[in-house]
Amino acid sequence: MKVLVTGAAGFLGRRLVKALLAGAPGLPGVSTIVAADTAACSIDDPRVDGRTGTIADDRFAASIVERNVDVVYHLAAIVSGGAEADFDLGMRVNVDATRTLLEACRHLGNRPRFVFTSTLAVFGGPLPAVVPDDIAVMPQSSYGAEKAIVELLVNEYSRRQFVDGIVCRLPTVAVRPGKPNAAASSFVSGILREPLAGIDTVCPVPLDTRLWIGSPALVAGNLVHAARVRTSDLGDRRTVNLPGLSVTPAEMLDSLERAAGARTRARVRCELDRRIMRIVCTWPGAFDVSRALRLGFSADRDIDSIVRQFIVEHREEQPA
Amino acid sequence: MKVLVTGAAGFLGRRLVKALLAGAPGLPGVSTIVAADTAACSIDDPRVDGRTGTIADDRFAASIVERNVDVVYHLAAIVSGGAEADFDLGMRVNVDATRTLLEACRHLGNRPRFVFTSTLAVFGGPLPAVVPDDIAVMPQSSYGAEKAIVELLVNEYSRRQFVDGIVCRLPTVAVRPGKPNAAASSFVSGILREPLAGIDTVCPVPLDTRLWIGSPALVAGNLVHAARVRTSDLGDRRTVNLPGLSVTPAEMLDSLERAAGARTRARVRCELDRRIMRIVCTWPGAFDVSRALRLGFSADRDIDSIVRQFIVEHREEQPA
Repeated sequence: MKVLVTGAAGFLGRRLVKALLAGAPGLPGVSTIVAADTAACSIDDPRVDGRTGTIADDRFAASIVERNVDVVYHLAAIVSGGAEADFDLGMRVNVDATRTLLEACRHLGNRPRFVFTSTLAVFGGPLPAVVPDDIAVMPQSSYGAEKAIVELLVNEYSRRQFVDGIVCRLPTVAVRPGKPNAAASSFVSGILREPLAGIDTVCPVPLDTRLWIGSPALVAGNLVHAARVRTSDLGDRRTVNLPGLSVTPAEMLDSLERAAGARTRARVRCELDRRIMRIVCTWPGAFDVSRALRLGFSADRDIDSIVRQFIVEHREEQPA
Repeated sequence: MKVLVTGAAGFLGRRLVKALLAGAPGLPGVSTIVAADTAACSIDDPRVDGRTGTIADDRFAASIVERNVDVVYHLAAIVSGGAEADFDLGMRVNVDATRTLLEACRHLGNRPRFVFTSTLAVFGGPLPAVVPDDIAVMPQSSYGAEKAIVELLVNEYSRRQFVDGIVCRLPTVAVRPGKPNAAASSFVSGILREPLAGIDTVCPVPLDTRLWIGSPALVAGNLVHAARVRTSDLGDRRTVNLPGLSVTPAEMLDSLERAAGARTRARVRCELDRRIMRIVCTWPGAFDVSRALRLGFSADRDIDSIVRQFIVEHREEQPA
């Protein structure tokens, strides 16, 4: 099958491209992946066709949607901190560029699968402890509002049979490798990654804040699965709250201590940041994911397995 | 105060302009109403400044948002049947033109009140008998999807303090005078208006379908009220389900018979139309409107008073 991945050079995008290349039961083998991003994704495989450009440029966005593409993964986005800082840029990339991609898919005429990664940032305001499928979104950030708008577009383009869409509301992906980024949720990875690398860091939200997280391997695997879900099983609701793990920073730090000792844990201190709290503390801490599980999506087992996954994969980056 | 009304030549728009000119307690007097529509609104009052053009034209849309406007009522839209028939036109008018208006308001810098009329067509799929405030939208029409997208935009532009927005989800307005239109809900007025004018007509949905309706006087009055609501009372949710009356076509026809006799009622026959049922039968038939009532919006008393309102206002159009 022929695949397009936007945001392919990002951490999750690269992971997804590799998972697609590796293949999965019940999914046709990959013949080509058009891997688009503002930077090269640099995966050395003859099936990967890298394209460098911004989807904010209409012509670039239209050019990457090639005839006969079977599955489009649209991951590229301005993240939460960035969209909050620059409203117009967020709208242009997160909304308008997505619409350009959807329009290009519509005009192909072959109704490709369109997998859109959305976010729990579409939620806000008072919420039940466990969020059901049918609760109203109420974004408290531009990023969340933009993602919620695109959720509606993907549902509508699917209802009109322009694309065969599925919206995956991802948990916060942790542990991300690399550097902190502009996402308000950047600390969720940071409070595990930085101390493991011997770096002091800060938790900007109260230690008992409920977070909804998923490991990189799990989220990439679930995105691969999104290409093979029978969309007729989705009914009229193309949006799925993907499984995650409900944990607090305190529980994450307990797990860190179990894996790497008290001195490592001591590198994290709590220093509240109102700007980040205002965004992150409006996100739900747990979802009812029975529908996602019925659809065949998977869940992480526990926080220790997430911490272990990171330590094993990034052993060489940690201090001796 | 200075007001802009889009869709001012429409039935509801004209009614709103007249109600604004008449004034309301707690609302500053009107100095000017820019009354914009594709046709002239033809209300003879020196305070009415009519503008003819389409908001699909960016320059026209931007030109009607004048410096120092205090309240913008955005009613103009491609209706449900029209947006379903022409997807691109619906998106251009219902989404893009609204965004142009919001952008123009944003750049005024005085944060005008922005009253947006939305619809129960944002809902669909399985719903509880009485729909609460916090249930997820799931549009089953392009019109509903477009209105739901703009709801998110108005909420976001308000959160960022670009405008002081309020979204009024209107019940189906009945009884509309005049001719049937392209709205899927056109019959809701038709099954009362046509027989009263001595014309045979059709009810295209089952007679026990729950409809959520509001009289023209009530809806116009509630829109006037939307200009004086304290938006701080709205909390983070700028969207309000306005009060309506939950009735079935059978109950409407009983009321028609009480007001005008069995022969008038006999002019309506039931002839199911799958295209209309597919849209209308996914709309909710009743809402929990306790929040709207707390905010000071009003409700119709009963179906008989709605039928009476129409008969009194349009006596001259009925056969002797």
